[in-house]
Amino acid sequence: MEIIDGGICAVDDVKAYGASDGKYGAAVILCRDSHAAAVFTSNKVVAAPIIISKKNIENGKLSAIVANSGNANCFTGEKGLDDAKNMINLVAQKIHVNPDDVAVGSTGVIGRKMPMQKINKLIEKCLENLENSKEASKKAAEAIMTTDKHPKQIAVKTLLKNGISVKIGGIVKGSGMIEPNMGTMLCYLTTDVKASPSQLQAALKKAVDVSFNMLVIDGDESTNDMVVLMANGKSGEIDQNFQDALEFVCKELAKMMAKDGEGATKYMEVRVKGAYTVEDARKAAKAVAKSSLVKTALFGADPNWGRIVAAVGYSGADMDEKLISVALESEDKLIGIVEKGEVKAYQGSDELEKAEDIMKNREINIIIDLGMGVHTAVAYGCDLSYDYIKINAEYTT
Amino acid sequence: MEIIDGGICAVDDVKAYGASDGKYGAAVILCRDSHAAAVFTSNKVVAAPIIISKKNIENGKLSAIVANSGNANCFTGEKGLDDAKNMINLVAQKIHVNPDDVAVGSTGVIGRKMPMQKINKLIEKCLENLENSKEASKKAAEAIMTTDKHPKQIAVKTLLKNGISVKIGGIVKGSGMIEPNMGTMLCYLTTDVKASPSQLQAALKKAVDVSFNMLVIDGDESTNDMVVLMANGKSGEIDQNFQDALEFVCKELAKMMAKDGEGATKYMEVRVKGAYTVEDARKAAKAVAKSSLVKTALFGADPNWGRIVAAVGYSGADMDEKLISVALESEDKLIGIVEKGEVKAYQGSDELEKAEDIMKNREINIIIDLGMGVHTAVAYGCDLSYDYIKINAEYTT
Repeated sequence: MEIIDGGICAVDDVKAYGASDGKYGAAVILCRDSHAAAVFTSNKVVAAPIIISKKNIENGKLSAIVANSGNANCFTGEKGLDDAKNMINLVAQKIHVNPDDVAVGSTGVIGRKMPMQKINKLIEKCLENLENSKEASKKAAEAIMTTDKHPKQIAVKTLLKNGISVKIGGIVKGSGMIEPNMGTMLCYLTTDVKASPSQLQAALKKAVDVSFNMLVIDGDESTNDMVVLMANGKSGEIDQNFQDALEFVCKELAKMMAKDGEGATKYMEVRVKGAYTVEDARKAAKAVAKSSLVKTALFGADPNWGRIVAAVGYSGADMDEKLISVALESEDKLIGIVEKGEVKAYQGSDELEKAEDIMKNREINIIIDLGMGVHTAVAYGCDLSYDYIKINAEYTT
Repeated sequence: MEIIDGGICAVDDVKAYGASDGKYGAAVILCRDSHAAAVFTSNKVVAAPIIISKKNIENGKLSAIVANSGNANCFTGEKGLDDAKNMINLVAQKIHVNPDDVAVGSTGVIGRKMPMQKINKLIEKCLENLENSKEASKKAAEAIMTTDKHPKQIAVKTLLKNGISVKIGGIVKGSGMIEPNMGTMLCYLTTDVKASPSQLQAALKKAVDVSFNMLVIDGDESTNDMVVLMANGKSGEIDQNFQDALEFVCKELAKMMAKDGEGATKYMEVRVKGAYTVEDARKAAKAVAKSSLVKTALFGADPNWGRIVAAVGYSGADMDEKLISVALESEDKLIGIVEKGEVKAYQGSDELEKAEDIMKNREINIIIDLGMGVHTAVAYGCDLSYDYIKINAEYTT
């Protein structure tokens, strides 16, 4: 597997574009006659574009996606549904496809009417400029940003088991409100793999479970989340190599989101091993990544491992404080803090001093061995800083 | 029911005292030959004092409680258990009771050895000064504080149904790490009601469920939480009037904790009604009080009701966005924001302007009617401010 340039446009024949005007943006992605799969928010309050996209993806086919930023088109009633349909119709007419073959996504403030004149103008600009280029993919990634500081995209090329080359590209948006089953994130993936809609759905679900569903920014869950995968079938048949590459792409995009978390100054990976079940491993990893106390300790470079152990304790995961080991890792340095329930980094120890040094780094791995079984999980997170408060205390003003 | 002075010492014959030295403190409460009940943390990592106190309360009797602040005595192994027992023995010897009739609590940093010389000195000071006075109750409340800004105590007097007067007093400590089933909070309650240990346990469990278990500061749950109720039986038999008074006391103490939440500048009550089940009501109320986005909006005085609705949506409570109503209330002003799914406080409306005014106040009620049934719940919370980050990024240094 090789990381390549081009984002969603790394896949042949995919065209894209993005355009912004102040706090509003729109992106269009064209991947004609694709089989498609999607994962949506589990929030019971569901935005209009999610309702429409769920319906349109039922037959497992898509040719395009249109998305806007600046307004979530959520809690907007019948008018909101009409607006989402109109966004789709605008695209479908121009590219000559059935409106049912277009998905729509929105992100931004909840409960405000869509500024359709502005959004339509932006979509039209996208439609006039659709092209297969790395710049176009980047423009699409930029156009769907809200509080994101950086556009997020990736592409990989890998060989299927039969030797045929396959590509996967993705763009993602989201820097807050991400958890527990994705927050306002929009993620659009393209590939040339050949697969049935149900094969794609199974592959995507599995990849989302180990990537976006293990990402924690602030514990809030959005009304607008969606991950869509379009596969135009121009390469070889889906297999495990494709699955591995898809999981890699989703994990890398999830890491980019954690690093760009609202106000984040530090990135953490919580790697749990030795769990009795995979569910235990996931619960423990996510509880640590989600803990406000762990997140503020990370921000303050404080090796307060008691907060890590306490979070594992309330996570619901099966654990025994006499079996647990905790280590901190960064830049090839690894320090054991607790080993099978015994504190190594007590006050005045060399270990504590080394742990303090590790905590000063920008990227930190928290390694937890529950010592109970063989299951593992990794959660992706960031610190909780003054800027998170600033960004969210002033969001709608 | 009447609020009276005196905290835990409002109850006749109860003696108390508290003493502090730098970041360490100790308190002793004497309520001889009491029936007792307690609720402890559900964290799987359990501090030494919790292990000892659980055992000592098994027979439903207590004569005293000893507690310290500054060190949690958690993750401290056999030595920690010995330290907790030694704290108990010191008290038991001096007041001539069986060590099994003394409970012990600790709060502070996890994973450090107890500074027993300091703690013992403080306990001895308490034992020499035990008295029945409101100053003594306040000193006890102060001695168990950690990041608390204010000591928290209350007492009430009420009439049982047979006309006999009964008193309940309480002190509590805790300003962070409180949720979902209590965080590092120590709460000690005294009363003169006559009740069996199992009657007390049922009464306490019910009161904790509607008070401390509905309190959210930061979503972390401590290894050291305990609520203990001692009843010396010198007044009349337990009845519903006592239960009402006990719930009132616990709710008032929970409110004091929310108002004194780490870095809190604002207090919120989330009042959910119209829920299909009481469990739905609780889930919805707690999800809103816990949402980082709602908490930062409160801090920023931003009437971002979309975040409230989104939190209800992911709470797990049964809900329908077409039936939900949301209102904001403060200082006798009540503004409907959403009514049965219809947005009233849209941009440019009078309602939004009034909602903005309400959000500037220090105490705000968020009123949510799910429109599905008859069940209610109230959650207690606070905003998320720059100071929360400051307090927790620097805690152990």
